[in-house]
Amino acid sequence: MTVFEPRNPDFAARVHRSFNRQTFMSTLGAELNMVKPGAVDIRLKHAPANCQQHGYFHGGVVGTLADNASGYASFSLMEANDSVLTVEYKLNLFAPADGDVLLVKGRVVRAGRQLIICRSDAFIIKAGVEKQCAAMLGTFMVMKDVPESHHNISNVGKA
Amino acid sequence: MTVFEPRNPDFAARVHRSFNRQTFMSTLGAELNMVKPGAVDIRLKHAPANCQQHGYFHGGVVGTLADNASGYASFSLMEANDSVLTVEYKLNLFAPADGDVLLVKGRVVRAGRQLIICRSDAFIIKAGVEKQCAAMLGTFMVMKDVPESHHNISNVGKA
Amino acid sequence: MTVFEPRNPDFAARVHRSFNRQTFMSTLGAELNMVKPGAVDIRLKHAPANCQQHGYFHGGVVGTLADNASGYASFSLMEANDSVLTVEYKLNLFAPADGDVLLVKGRVVRAGRQLIICRSDAFIIKAGVEKQCAAMLGTFMVMKDVPESHHNISNVGKA
Amino acid sequence: MTVFEPRNPDFAARVHRSFNRQTFMSTLGAELNMVKPGAVDIRLKHAPANCQQHGYFHGGVVGTLADNASGYASFSLMEANDSVLTVEYKLNLFAPADGDVLLVKGRVVRAGRQLIICRSDAFIIKAGVEKQCAAMLGTFMVMKDVPESHHNISNVGKA
Repeated sequence: MTVFEPRNPDFAARVHRSFNRQTFMSTLGAELNMVKPGAVDIRLKHAPANCQQHGYFHGGVVGTLADNASGYASFSLMEANDSVLTVEYKLNLFAPADGDVLLVKGRVVRAGRQLIICRSDAFIIKAGVEKQCAAMLGTFMVMKDVPESHHNISNVGKA
Repeated sequence: MTVFEPRNPDFAARVHRSFNRQTFMSTLGAELNMVKPGAVDIRLKHAPANCQQHGYFHGGVVGTLADNASGYASFSLMEANDSVLTVEYKLNLFAPADGDVLLVKGRVVRAGRQLIICRSDAFIIKAGVEKQCAAMLGTFMVMKDVPESHHNISNVGKA
Repeated sequence: MTVFEPRNPDFAARVHRSFNRQTFMSTLGAELNMVKPGAVDIRLKHAPANCQQHGYFHGGVVGTLADNASGYASFSLMEANDSVLTVEYKLNLFAPADGDVLLVKGRVVRAGRQLIICRSDAFIIKAGVEKQCAAMLGTFMVMKDVPESHHNISNVGKA
Repeated sequence: MTVFEPRNPDFAARVHRSFNRQTFMSTLGAELNMVKPGAVDIRLKHAPANCQQHGYFHGGVVGTLADNASGYASFSLMEANDSVLTVEYKLNLFAPADGDVLLVKGRVVRAGRQLIICRSDAFIIKAGVEKQCAAMLGTFMVMKDVPESHHNISNVGKA
């Protein structure tokens, strides 16, 4: 695992503040489980409101957390005035998310000045047994000098 | 646009029944807007509970609906005893989902016996103006003779 | 299909010059079949040297042309001093590339200032019958003020 | 790294035989560097014929080897009468393939009965220094009881 040096010593608090501003995370009940430079884990307990047709975690929930875990892993390496955008991701769902807890681990693979490449691995925990259920590979963008509070994506020419 | 012939005349009712069993769809407030053979549209009004840090639709919501619109487009072409699994998808998010309504259109590109390839296009509508904000390309699997009510993915050897 | 306005009137000649500098294109025998703003087609005749184990076009050949058709579609919209990089692409191969000619059509979906999103569709032609065999969705980057001749990707901070 | 048990004791010879039937591998000059159950490395020396416009390995070459390394990693786990198909893959290119040797490592992430999920990591070696330049995540299909010599994809209903 590559070791990354954070550019902003306040990175962990900044990730928490941004995560807490996402109402969708509290709608789901998702929690930040770990925040290190280039590595973020998100944890979610099973709830009847977040299911697909067989009562398992909905695939969209898995995708949401995979995107967010990698997005915040990217964000953890940025400077104090930068913000992050998801450019794209690809998700393979290869086992049913049938369990009590979903744990998603986002890791930076390569941190460039403009683009950051990440992987997320999702694990389902059932009766204490952990099993990988999904894998993601994605691309995130550094919004240079666009702090979150003044963020207006339409002005910064992403795409 | 390819025209597809449904194998199950009851396909539309079947899509609605399955969609209604997904609690996550009602948590989001998502609605089936159109169900045709190989083509399904999903519509979602903006709600404060589904946002990212700037008050726009969360990217995970866009991904969830893109996956589901294509998944149900695949499902609409299957026989009465088959069910559908998402194998994988890749999503590009290229404009902020800043608007009143999110409309996601899933379309079958190629329907094989075992695998179905689909595209989804997501549009954000703001003050009556519609703009594409995301595109998806994904792979869905036919679970032959595994009706939804008896569905147990772990027995059918997906992956 | 979106209509794009080229920023460089010399765009078609520029695409041809860059394409001709890629030795791998002549190794394959690939030809530019059409160059319009935001739309490039590449054509390749079957040759025994480019096959997989059953004598069909190798999937890597399909992927190469899908990447290049979209990359040059992106390049066609750039200014005279910009160059293009492939950030990533996702390719679905859904029918055997069993035929005489492979035709790959790259189209810009969304042209941003920094990133360009494209689709490529690959068609196999056998005895005059054309059939789609693959689809791609990818992300390309504008290398601002990095003309091809002075191109040194390691200086420009891609990733 | 997961340890996999091969179902066919002859797996390594079978991978070599199939690889050698792909004329495109000898056109490129690619060699099998390692074949273990669920893990295959492919190696390619730089050659003027396989370049993009700056004399680096063409991205299509990187994609071809990433697809093949994972495809043969999948194939190594199959039974004697099965064959393999690439369903799809997603490739991130994040550093220039500027070097003397390209080494691509394909690894099985999850081996299902019908689908196999793999990762490939591509490394460029320049003056003895190895650096990762690309990452792939893809899906491969088991063609049950379709040995390579009788392979006719159009009969087996892939897609």
